[in-house]
Amino acid sequence: MNDEKIINDPVFGFIKIPRGPLLDIIKHPWMQRLTRIKQLGLTSIVYPSAQHARFLHSIGSFHLMSEAINSLTNKGVFIFDSEAEAVEAAILMHDIGHGPFSHVLENTLINGISHEDISLIMMEQMNREMKGALTLALKIFKNEYPKRFLHQLISSQLDMDRLDYLRRDCFFTGLTEGNIGSARIIKMLNVANDRLVVDYKGIYSIENYLISRRLMYWQVYLHKTTVASEKMLLNVLNRAKGLVRNGHEVFAPPCLKYFLSNDVNAELFKCDSKALYYYTLLDDTDIWSALKEWTENNDNILSILASDIINRNLFKVEVSDKPFDEEYIENIRKSLSDRYNITKEETCYFMSIDFIQKDMYDFNDDHISILYKDGTIKDISEASDILDIVLLSKKNRKYYLCYKRF
Amino acid sequence: MNDEKIINDPVFGFIKIPRGPLLDIIKHPWMQRLTRIKQLGLTSIVYPSAQHARFLHSIGSFHLMSEAINSLTNKGVFIFDSEAEAVEAAILMHDIGHGPFSHVLENTLINGISHEDISLIMMEQMNREMKGALTLALKIFKNEYPKRFLHQLISSQLDMDRLDYLRRDCFFTGLTEGNIGSARIIKMLNVANDRLVVDYKGIYSIENYLISRRLMYWQVYLHKTTVASEKMLLNVLNRAKGLVRNGHEVFAPPCLKYFLSNDVNAELFKCDSKALYYYTLLDDTDIWSALKEWTENNDNILSILASDIINRNLFKVEVSDKPFDEEYIENIRKSLSDRYNITKEETCYFMSIDFIQKDMYDFNDDHISILYKDGTIKDISEASDILDIVLLSKKNRKYYLCYKRF
Amino acid sequence: MNDEKIINDPVFGFIKIPRGPLLDIIKHPWMQRLTRIKQLGLTSIVYPSAQHARFLHSIGSFHLMSEAINSLTNKGVFIFDSEAEAVEAAILMHDIGHGPFSHVLENTLINGISHEDISLIMMEQMNREMKGALTLALKIFKNEYPKRFLHQLISSQLDMDRLDYLRRDCFFTGLTEGNIGSARIIKMLNVANDRLVVDYKGIYSIENYLISRRLMYWQVYLHKTTVASEKMLLNVLNRAKGLVRNGHEVFAPPCLKYFLSNDVNAELFKCDSKALYYYTLLDDTDIWSALKEWTENNDNILSILASDIINRNLFKVEVSDKPFDEEYIENIRKSLSDRYNITKEETCYFMSIDFIQKDMYDFNDDHISILYKDGTIKDISEASDILDIVLLSKKNRKYYLCYKRF
Amino acid sequence: MNDEKIINDPVFGFIKIPRGPLLDIIKHPWMQRLTRIKQLGLTSIVYPSAQHARFLHSIGSFHLMSEAINSLTNKGVFIFDSEAEAVEAAILMHDIGHGPFSHVLENTLINGISHEDISLIMMEQMNREMKGALTLALKIFKNEYPKRFLHQLISSQLDMDRLDYLRRDCFFTGLTEGNIGSARIIKMLNVANDRLVVDYKGIYSIENYLISRRLMYWQVYLHKTTVASEKMLLNVLNRAKGLVRNGHEVFAPPCLKYFLSNDVNAELFKCDSKALYYYTLLDDTDIWSALKEWTENNDNILSILASDIINRNLFKVEVSDKPFDEEYIENIRKSLSDRYNITKEETCYFMSIDFIQKDMYDFNDDHISILYKDGTIKDISEASDILDIVLLSKKNRKYYLCYKRF
Repeated sequence: MNDEKIINDPVFGFIKIPRGPLLDIIKHPWMQRLTRIKQLGLTSIVYPSAQHARFLHSIGSFHLMSEAINSLTNKGVFIFDSEAEAVEAAILMHDIGHGPFSHVLENTLINGISHEDISLIMMEQMNREMKGALTLALKIFKNEYPKRFLHQLISSQLDMDRLDYLRRDCFFTGLTEGNIGSARIIKMLNVANDRLVVDYKGIYSIENYLISRRLMYWQVYLHKTTVASEKMLLNVLNRAKGLVRNGHEVFAPPCLKYFLSNDVNAELFKCDSKALYYYTLLDDTDIWSALKEWTENNDNILSILASDIINRNLFKVEVSDKPFDEEYIENIRKSLSDRYNITKEETCYFMSIDFIQKDMYDFNDDHISILYKDGTIKDISEASDILDIVLLSKKNRKYYLCYKRF
Repeated sequence: MNDEKIINDPVFGFIKIPRGPLLDIIKHPWMQRLTRIKQLGLTSIVYPSAQHARFLHSIGSFHLMSEAINSLTNKGVFIFDSEAEAVEAAILMHDIGHGPFSHVLENTLINGISHEDISLIMMEQMNREMKGALTLALKIFKNEYPKRFLHQLISSQLDMDRLDYLRRDCFFTGLTEGNIGSARIIKMLNVANDRLVVDYKGIYSIENYLISRRLMYWQVYLHKTTVASEKMLLNVLNRAKGLVRNGHEVFAPPCLKYFLSNDVNAELFKCDSKALYYYTLLDDTDIWSALKEWTENNDNILSILASDIINRNLFKVEVSDKPFDEEYIENIRKSLSDRYNITKEETCYFMSIDFIQKDMYDFNDDHISILYKDGTIKDISEASDILDIVLLSKKNRKYYLCYKRF
Repeated sequence: MNDEKIINDPVFGFIKIPRGPLLDIIKHPWMQRLTRIKQLGLTSIVYPSAQHARFLHSIGSFHLMSEAINSLTNKGVFIFDSEAEAVEAAILMHDIGHGPFSHVLENTLINGISHEDISLIMMEQMNREMKGALTLALKIFKNEYPKRFLHQLISSQLDMDRLDYLRRDCFFTGLTEGNIGSARIIKMLNVANDRLVVDYKGIYSIENYLISRRLMYWQVYLHKTTVASEKMLLNVLNRAKGLVRNGHEVFAPPCLKYFLSNDVNAELFKCDSKALYYYTLLDDTDIWSALKEWTENNDNILSILASDIINRNLFKVEVSDKPFDEEYIENIRKSLSDRYNITKEETCYFMSIDFIQKDMYDFNDDHISILYKDGTIKDISEASDILDIVLLSKKNRKYYLCYKRF
Repeated sequence: MNDEKIINDPVFGFIKIPRGPLLDIIKHPWMQRLTRIKQLGLTSIVYPSAQHARFLHSIGSFHLMSEAINSLTNKGVFIFDSEAEAVEAAILMHDIGHGPFSHVLENTLINGISHEDISLIMMEQMNREMKGALTLALKIFKNEYPKRFLHQLISSQLDMDRLDYLRRDCFFTGLTEGNIGSARIIKMLNVANDRLVVDYKGIYSIENYLISRRLMYWQVYLHKTTVASEKMLLNVLNRAKGLVRNGHEVFAPPCLKYFLSNDVNAELFKCDSKALYYYTLLDDTDIWSALKEWTENNDNILSILASDIINRNLFKVEVSDKPFDEEYIENIRKSLSDRYNITKEETCYFMSIDFIQKDMYDFNDDHISILYKDGTIKDISEASDILDIVLLSKKNRKYYLCYKRF
């Protein structure tokens, strides 16, 4: 009785968390830390309503996982209670290693170690704290458990992570057209040959899911204004790091200071316990708090970039299907140098040339398999008579040229 | 002041109708008749919430039309107030000629005349009543007006009719994943060379719209259970018609009786004013009311079919990508004949063999054209790097075999 | 496995119906009949989106019932599986005796027998058909079962019927402000001394529920335009009944004809099996179908009233806190008589004087009891420090004067 | 053309901001600062989805203001374009002086000056920057403009501020039952004797609004867990301030350090330009960033409190209708002192005794006036026959006792 905690979620309604290890995970300081890391990083610069944190996304993924377990069990897929709890624990923790503005972070403050690697380190630490209660969860998470479909529920083309974040990001950005039929997809999940498959009746929901995902990528996740802001953040962090290394005075809370002062890589995570310690302390708020102080720094480049982010004076962005002309870039570089009285080398802080490619469906990754009534299984690329999955999976590359207006 | 009527719509909120000709249209008995004709006919057999009537769809289309006019005007497309009112009047009336269960009706109670033809007859009649106030609306509706993009707002791949019904049908069926970005699409509309085009930034919303439409077609409009019910209704109406012609006593309200007793075709609509009169009287309620009485008719076939529809004992449906084997069909025919003690000929009332094809994008129809920043225009089939429009437009044919369970 | 049927509900999402007696009830022709009876009768004249049928409301109430059973069980209230199934069956059938436009019907086509009485007759008949499978359900329904709180879940101030229809009617009218926290209220339900109570933490949700209900009453259920339409329907049915009794030719489908030709009362239901038979055949569609034919009847009063309803030329309505002045009424009567060339007596068909009173909270009915942490129980009238329940329960009477415009 | 910026709001859809002074306000760094201040402060500790920022609330209030202007103009209330723009500018800026966790802040980091006072200082500064473009807006804001109803749209019992935040907070907390009919209320607004009034037909929406507001207060704004967290934050800030004054080393970003080191009051705001400067730099992120560092401070009390907030080990809360017994409090004090090895005086950091009173309807404040058809005006307290406004306006006091668990 009274054996559960209820969290109210505007997306899925009341979510019930059973007391025990699952609630313990939620209460862990490392999970609570996710309340201070926004799901969509700088996206709120474009969609001001998109302020939601990774914490609730983790809870929502857990909710979908328990629905999926239910649905599969109803179809006769046998899942032990211990397996159900383990896979629920694993999805709860799947984002635990995320830092603030993960993609930016991984190219500035940490090197050669991804947030996924760090997730694993953290989960193993939590498992020790919880006296092995997460061992099975970790096995499934690392795909070392025989029933492989359980891992697929956590990480695959149709995992609960994606089903949650697509719905949640739609809701919080207000892009209702991107809505996916998570309930229908989950109802259509099945298992064949130890692989997650989708009953053929769900094929239209899958098509809709793939297209909605694409919409969300280009309209939200890779929105050019968001990309420009991320480049600015990347540049300002690199500038700060350079300045700190050169002994220039740069304000930062200690946890951030550690990452500005050190080359934090996989090696350091192993040999210096402070790396993990400071990493679990760091969140969005440190970055914003520091940025504001940097607006007054006596390094011109640092202060300009920081002000521009804080006050939303964003880089101009040009997008193209092919690389930008070198001469064109050179002209911009020159103009920036002249206009802001900086060297040619320093213009790298005021501009960014990059490309982004997003393959919407990865043949090398997990497939989405459709199960027909007669037991045959086809890949969605074959099963769908409308999506050109070859195109869908083609590296879809866009070139971005971002630079400070002059 | 107080110069508008407000209708509350759960889909779009308060919709304001200015007093004058637009409100007069809404008050017209022929528009009010649409309150008694369901938008989705027999679909509520599958989605019991889908009870919405064509009336509100017409109001909703009008609402989107006024938004579209606004959006285009903001972009510098010049539209006279009189044109705006005319195109709004036209969209309000676009469904006026629909009868109950239109697609079934057009193959049973009327012949050689479509609901579109009847719409036109009715609009012209209304125009006479309104002393020519609808002349411009009719011109645009018939695509006889020079500014052709105005007609496209009423009837094309991206007309306000479709934008409304897709959103509305999603809402009332509860298939939220089928949601389309009507507001975004309208915001992206533009005019180039007197044709409706979509700004390139709207391309993902268009892709999503095309896929959502497809989802709605197979999941709702052409749902196999709905198709089976329609076949049953078609059969029972044909049986009733046959019986009436043979002098058998069949109850029907006079307006329905007229269509059971006569060959109602384009010719008759011209020479017998009763054709139009009874047509404008006929709605869903007459069909249902009659069906219930037919459950007691002493013609066995009529009463069985009517009972089966009323009590939801639906035909079994088999769906296939290729035509059904003739021998297989013959066996079913024989079983039906034996089981229900009817002749081989009469089994046609207890079964239906048909195919449905739905081309999601019609190259011969209006194209969806994407307008790029540099002024070039591409068809969505070229512009989209994901949708295989060749496949999308390929006749996508499904064979249905429906028959009474035996 | 595959042991349930899923119905998609835009209000509550996927609703699962377990195969067995519950699904059998849903498939019963008498339940299917509720798909042809609108939940809100003539309300769609004011809110054109409100076309939803009693069928889905019954399913929705069932859904809330299963949630309530769950919630109570979680709190340690012991409920046998057989009891759960019975109370779910009972709520599924609670509206089974509703006829078309119930309130109008009970004052015209039937007399001295309410739809509740008929529900009971029908359930008992269904129980016989189902060989006693509904005996426990009936006991609970009739409040003859010892665990009295089970009956309260079906019929009380906080029953699942109300929780569903308030949410559902909000959704389908688009009056989102009337939304109630059904999930929260259900979570707060408890049982004390064999009575349904609400945990004190739910007090604000209860207040909100009572006020939302009031809003829905005056804004929807008793909207003056709806009331006027109901008066028109009442008058036209009485006129038709009078004409039929006098041998005047009046079209009606047989099931409706029965009710126009006979004094259908409790007595007749007992002695003439046709009464129940025709009742279970009658639905909204017969009334509408007949009304349309009546527009052409050679009785002037019948045809005018029928046309006015069909074409939405509604009575003018005046509302007052006190009875209307007799002289004022007399003047209207005279004007109607002159204008439409009818006798004074006949003006009763063109006008209606009535009052409506709605007590929002009934002291004599079930109370809403609040359970405090220390075990004490207070009536909401005491517990709420804001609602004046004395006022709330005061007979709140409004006088309506409706008459044909002249 | 292209004369507006569109912001996508999940609550109200596309919101259009005309280019010119209104867009300039939105782009101002002081408005952008509101993107870093959460609307509901610590509420996300209870409702993890409630992460929305004051920025979008300001935009939403602006949207409702433009709807209100429209509605009033339609009813014949004359409003100059310049007045409309001014009142829209004023509502955009109404929250500009909010700091992080305003209510906590005003009792710790600033003294004798409220965020409303600071708003005014900031607006006047912005007016100077914008060369007087905001003069009329300021006049209306300060209620110094003759058309007094314009001020009421910004600040009164029914202002656009409240209408927006109630809807928005419902949306982002997921408490859908608290929804109010903002569109209906705005449609019912009118002006009589230069005062904002509500047409009598809106009375049920007003009742619902008052009750929903009450629900939101006790369920969200004054939720006991939120109150407890605020007490913890208040205590930790006071502790930090005390430590800083005593020369103890306490990390803080410079902008926060200023407020910890100085007595910042109205006087200082006048004489030290740094007060305003640092205030406009300070936001939620500084507080969180500092709190995390304080978890490692060598002052035990500071580090414990900071850890407890960061890791969500919240104070226990007891709520009562009457003051807590002094002896009972003393016992707790003693237990805290023993358990945490601190002096009796220091226990004030680990506990908090307070009361909250919320008068839901203030007789001395603006009234809500109902306008009847005959021109008479009644206060809602008289007009409503259900709400006991005397009770509603009664100081509704709750006593809170919060303390660290021991």
